[in-house]
Amino acid sequence: MVQAVVMPAPRQPLELRSFATPQPEDGGVVLRTLGSEVCGTDVHLWHGRLAGVPYPIIPGHVSVGEVVALGGEVRDIDGRRLNLGDIVTFLDVWGSCGRCWYCAVAQATTRCPQRKVYGITLGAEEGLFGGWSEMISLRPGAHIVSLPPDLDWSTFLAAGCGLPTALHAVERGAIRFGDTVVIQGDGPVGLNAALLAQLRGAGQIILIGGAAVRLAMAQRLGVDQVIDINQQSEVERLETVYELTGGRGADVTIEATGVAAAVAEGMRLTRDAGRFVVVGQYTDAGTTVFHPHYDLNKKHLDVLGCWGSDASHLYRGVRVLARYQQSLPWAALISRRYTLQEAQTALEDVAAQRVVKALIVPGQTTPASATSGDRHGEQAAHG
Amino acid sequence: MVQAVVMPAPRQPLELRSFATPQPEDGGVVLRTLGSEVCGTDVHLWHGRLAGVPYPIIPGHVSVGEVVALGGEVRDIDGRRLNLGDIVTFLDVWGSCGRCWYCAVAQATTRCPQRKVYGITLGAEEGLFGGWSEMISLRPGAHIVSLPPDLDWSTFLAAGCGLPTALHAVERGAIRFGDTVVIQGDGPVGLNAALLAQLRGAGQIILIGGAAVRLAMAQRLGVDQVIDINQQSEVERLETVYELTGGRGADVTIEATGVAAAVAEGMRLTRDAGRFVVVGQYTDAGTTVFHPHYDLNKKHLDVLGCWGSDASHLYRGVRVLARYQQSLPWAALISRRYTLQEAQTALEDVAAQRVVKALIVPGQTTPASATSGDRHGEQAAHG
Amino acid sequence: MVQAVVMPAPRQPLELRSFATPQPEDGGVVLRTLGSEVCGTDVHLWHGRLAGVPYPIIPGHVSVGEVVALGGEVRDIDGRRLNLGDIVTFLDVWGSCGRCWYCAVAQATTRCPQRKVYGITLGAEEGLFGGWSEMISLRPGAHIVSLPPDLDWSTFLAAGCGLPTALHAVERGAIRFGDTVVIQGDGPVGLNAALLAQLRGAGQIILIGGAAVRLAMAQRLGVDQVIDINQQSEVERLETVYELTGGRGADVTIEATGVAAAVAEGMRLTRDAGRFVVVGQYTDAGTTVFHPHYDLNKKHLDVLGCWGSDASHLYRGVRVLARYQQSLPWAALISRRYTLQEAQTALEDVAAQRVVKALIVPGQTTPASATSGDRHGEQAAHG
Amino acid sequence: MVQAVVMPAPRQPLELRSFATPQPEDGGVVLRTLGSEVCGTDVHLWHGRLAGVPYPIIPGHVSVGEVVALGGEVRDIDGRRLNLGDIVTFLDVWGSCGRCWYCAVAQATTRCPQRKVYGITLGAEEGLFGGWSEMISLRPGAHIVSLPPDLDWSTFLAAGCGLPTALHAVERGAIRFGDTVVIQGDGPVGLNAALLAQLRGAGQIILIGGAAVRLAMAQRLGVDQVIDINQQSEVERLETVYELTGGRGADVTIEATGVAAAVAEGMRLTRDAGRFVVVGQYTDAGTTVFHPHYDLNKKHLDVLGCWGSDASHLYRGVRVLARYQQSLPWAALISRRYTLQEAQTALEDVAAQRVVKALIVPGQTTPASATSGDRHGEQAAHG
Repeated sequence: MVQAVVMPAPRQPLELRSFATPQPEDGGVVLRTLGSEVCGTDVHLWHGRLAGVPYPIIPGHVSVGEVVALGGEVRDIDGRRLNLGDIVTFLDVWGSCGRCWYCAVAQATTRCPQRKVYGITLGAEEGLFGGWSEMISLRPGAHIVSLPPDLDWSTFLAAGCGLPTALHAVERGAIRFGDTVVIQGDGPVGLNAALLAQLRGAGQIILIGGAAVRLAMAQRLGVDQVIDINQQSEVERLETVYELTGGRGADVTIEATGVAAAVAEGMRLTRDAGRFVVVGQYTDAGTTVFHPHYDLNKKHLDVLGCWGSDASHLYRGVRVLARYQQSLPWAALISRRYTLQEAQTALEDVAAQRVVKALIVPGQTTPASATSGDRHGEQAAHG
Repeated sequence: MVQAVVMPAPRQPLELRSFATPQPEDGGVVLRTLGSEVCGTDVHLWHGRLAGVPYPIIPGHVSVGEVVALGGEVRDIDGRRLNLGDIVTFLDVWGSCGRCWYCAVAQATTRCPQRKVYGITLGAEEGLFGGWSEMISLRPGAHIVSLPPDLDWSTFLAAGCGLPTALHAVERGAIRFGDTVVIQGDGPVGLNAALLAQLRGAGQIILIGGAAVRLAMAQRLGVDQVIDINQQSEVERLETVYELTGGRGADVTIEATGVAAAVAEGMRLTRDAGRFVVVGQYTDAGTTVFHPHYDLNKKHLDVLGCWGSDASHLYRGVRVLARYQQSLPWAALISRRYTLQEAQTALEDVAAQRVVKALIVPGQTTPASATSGDRHGEQAAHG
Repeated sequence: MVQAVVMPAPRQPLELRSFATPQPEDGGVVLRTLGSEVCGTDVHLWHGRLAGVPYPIIPGHVSVGEVVALGGEVRDIDGRRLNLGDIVTFLDVWGSCGRCWYCAVAQATTRCPQRKVYGITLGAEEGLFGGWSEMISLRPGAHIVSLPPDLDWSTFLAAGCGLPTALHAVERGAIRFGDTVVIQGDGPVGLNAALLAQLRGAGQIILIGGAAVRLAMAQRLGVDQVIDINQQSEVERLETVYELTGGRGADVTIEATGVAAAVAEGMRLTRDAGRFVVVGQYTDAGTTVFHPHYDLNKKHLDVLGCWGSDASHLYRGVRVLARYQQSLPWAALISRRYTLQEAQTALEDVAAQRVVKALIVPGQTTPASATSGDRHGEQAAHG
Repeated sequence: MVQAVVMPAPRQPLELRSFATPQPEDGGVVLRTLGSEVCGTDVHLWHGRLAGVPYPIIPGHVSVGEVVALGGEVRDIDGRRLNLGDIVTFLDVWGSCGRCWYCAVAQATTRCPQRKVYGITLGAEEGLFGGWSEMISLRPGAHIVSLPPDLDWSTFLAAGCGLPTALHAVERGAIRFGDTVVIQGDGPVGLNAALLAQLRGAGQIILIGGAAVRLAMAQRLGVDQVIDINQQSEVERLETVYELTGGRGADVTIEATGVAAAVAEGMRLTRDAGRFVVVGQYTDAGTTVFHPHYDLNKKHLDVLGCWGSDASHLYRGVRVLARYQQSLPWAALISRRYTLQEAQTALEDVAAQRVVKALIVPGQTTPASATSGDRHGEQAAHG
């Protein structure tokens, strides 16, 4: 039997349930879970803010596991044949059809209507399709990425789903060498974006947020200037950014806040002919007002919505982590590890922003304690 | 002596004044004006809606003239040495510095702070720097484009400043073969965009406007579907566009209306992962409300402000006209030609949208009459 | 029983064989063939110049058919459910995996190692997987495109596989409004490129070829200047192009010749900082010599290989044909229609370049005669 | 009086000559030289391998100086007004016209025919237009970049003209997160490219070169794998790269060798649908042979010539240096500093590849000694 955490319905207590030990489908894989992420999306799920979720579900959409059963010859994305004992992760999105207009003509696979998401839109009654479980069933056709030998699985989970989301946003931002990048939001997506901007040669990185511990983390991660929204009004923030950019504004701004008004502010923070990426409006946070003449047309601005991530973002993120984990301290993002039994606590800690990054580690036999001093901060953010 | 129309101040009657016959500066050119455009921007100027205008001015920013004096060896943009008698046009923007951060680093010359505009921000007391005049002085460094022998100057003015503006917007739209293009607005920019979309291989062109005669013109120019805003509400317009696009929305939408609410509507008219170009908010038309989650982020939308045009757009526009003037009926856009004495009437006809395209023709000795049946329609639009 | 043409092995006579009437697979479709193309690739197949071909095969990779049997609910690329009697075409490439590194990370699906091609790398013993047959079996997952009601299937086949290939090449070329485009080669790819360049607003189109009838066809299709390689040496061709471009060279050059030396020539025909697309080296035509300093580095040139085409190119091509078939005479490309019994003749006519475009029409009961006056010219070309 | 090094003619000994102390032109600036670079281009100049050089010249095209005289109000590229005592550098290219077809339509300013280059195509008889001099005259309109206070001028010269050249090449390469980048060549351009690739998030950097000390330097700069051309044949190099990339080849290859055959090799080192930038063919190094079918068309390869650099590359390079000089050891590239009197020795040391980066420092009163242990290696390379 396998133990797994089940979210029965919005705002209902999480439950630990037993399931039959899974067998791999033909072309599928069964993983023993090493760890799984708790992210802002799990809080959204618990608050019932996402449409189309087939409760009950097993949460956990970014996870790492060890291969314990194989349904024949299965290959990772590099074409390497998997073996028992391999340590792998996988894209949470499964089932993009490759045949529809969005996949085949628009080449915008994150808008494919057939896509399902592990831990979110695949239900607990269908199988072990979430990571807060001792085992995970990967269906045939899953995008599997093997972790390089020198990349610890916990470092990968420290980056978490914020990494591919931020990587997608940073790609959309098309940062050029020496650019000033403003990041709105100090949650996992914002912090990952701050790290990745340094791997695009940004000349200056400014991060705007509201939690002291996360702003301190941002500075530790290499951000050049932090702006605390508790200390500066919107007008003052604009003044600060313009002062830091010779009166021009940011070359690239990335919104990762979850607050609708931040979108209009972001347009104003960005320079004429700059680029503004909106990735933080993952759920409905209401409307905002802007001024098309001044904020958009006269500015000759690019405003770029950024939805989800695909296998390329996950794959690239893993390679970036493996190469730069020494020079950029991703692992520091982990605040605490929780057992399956502690999943409710983990969820509440994230909801209350008491931690930066929380991990569910099924294999832990005794309650885990914090692995870093930072017990605070996790903003709703997921791509 | 040279006669020229002067706009002394906002909402003051135009005046015909005499100026000394100009001599070319070293590197400059004097033109005898063949014709000059009256466009929505001239109405904005008369209404005092543009900042930084050094009244009194001589209006007329898109013009064609014959070279009558040369300040030494002067070359057109192709590097061809100009001769007396040549028929040329020129970029209204003059003086982009090539040295500032916008010119040299951002390569966004339409945001150069040094740029001046003929007929708009060069004053009447400085020289004959507008086209509603018998002669025009071109300063050294002007971007001069010779008209090809087989392109009549009146066809060029029929396209007018709407052509480079629309060309810039269509470039920003990055139309792909077979795309559905929705154009919001039936003024000169919208109509030029409708013509140019056919020269990008659009699969379907839908134009939304409000004036029956201009919608009829749109159909004559090859638009596949027109939507009359007097007959369809915003909700119905959305339904129509979704019905015409298999439920997906437009691949590319170009806003050219001058109405702020059209910007939010345009986001909704565009498909997921599509492109939306905002070119019609040339003056302050107020604010609008939108929904960042649904209208931008979840849609993975590109929203692209488009300001002004540069020498490349003018040059390319001239070559396109010369090549496709037979298959696409640009010349039909001209409603009426006016003498210098009739400039006030021309301005009022454009303001009242009684004409599509009005031309000032200084060399006409008797009052001109309409050259086409269409006496209506000119929406505020200029790039 | 179903009749189909079989190519048993390279340089062996084609045979007409009988096959059992096919049943649709689950998710598959059976088509009654309306017509299928004979193209230069079929000549390559017959000459044994392609690697990895599982002879015997049924040739015919671009075809149109009527749906006569459905394996359940099957949808076209637009998501529309297919019905019996629908007229459809399909992408010749089948089976791109969507999971490998090329599909999922590089997003270069034309390099997916799993892809198979109807009429080329799917063998006759596996099923009716070529178009020179009374019926065609479409496997589950095929990319199916319904022909619009106002697009005749023979017009689609007139464009043939040269259309998506040329469309891909023209997309790579990134033609801008008013550009001069030089096309090397007067086969189907070159002629399609000449048509499509007019749908990108090219300012001047120059085509270089060697067959008088095809050069005449090029002019009929709207090419502005043709250069006959029998009348001008390589040096003279360069001079002609530079003379027609103010001494600069072509903005965009598209190579579609099948001759290796044309690649070095194309670099020289293109202007500094221009774009040169190489699409005509579909089979091994040997080596060529060039001068990296002068031909590439100092020119700041983009040289872009272009391999194959995907579902987006086919889909977009169909929409372009439907919209512009009146203004651009694609249908004129058809030289002659052949019955299944005449397939050997068709192949030899194409090999000898006696026709521009040859069609196999299985439903014809009597030998077809030419449908246009042009009995000549078909250069080896296929994407 | 001012002392300056003059190169009287190709292969003639350098001379130290005296010039009158320069006065600034209106809009110009006079600098007291802090340091100037010796690069491979200077060797080419001495060998007479560049066309259009107006000997005698004062060499030195990348230099840093202190402002000692101003011709009125002069601004740097950021728009900041210069003051006496400011430490600045400037773009070696001067006089791009902004009006010609290359500047205004193609927006390829590095191909402007009006451009002149300090230290190369501005002669010694016209003024102090090279950096191997106690003073430098900047003409009006020069692109001036102020060095940030925390960036030492010698670090800037360590990067030298290889930095903007490599930055341009890396931009053309469009490296994506996690990509494998192969760099051909271990001269200043190659080494700068290796540093910059780490600021684009490359997942793996492989450098191919021939000098042991420079390969050791490459490893010190963060290159993951070096390949010594003395130890591996072309076939073995291909095998090594394919082995390190899962059999696919490099995502991006940058050629910076000065050897024509490296261009054909680079095509083969790059994966299907990858990008290959050719920046090392600055002078005529002869021809090479390639196979259009295998090396280009079937590979769906982008081959991108890269010529020169413009003000944006210099500006961005300065900002990158200022931000990342601690984490990436640019300063280590300096091998030795020379007085003006030692210029001949410096030139010969560079020609013989005995140093990585040599600096001319006019203000040194006694012969300088090496500032780093590396006395070797400087390959012909300049953009």
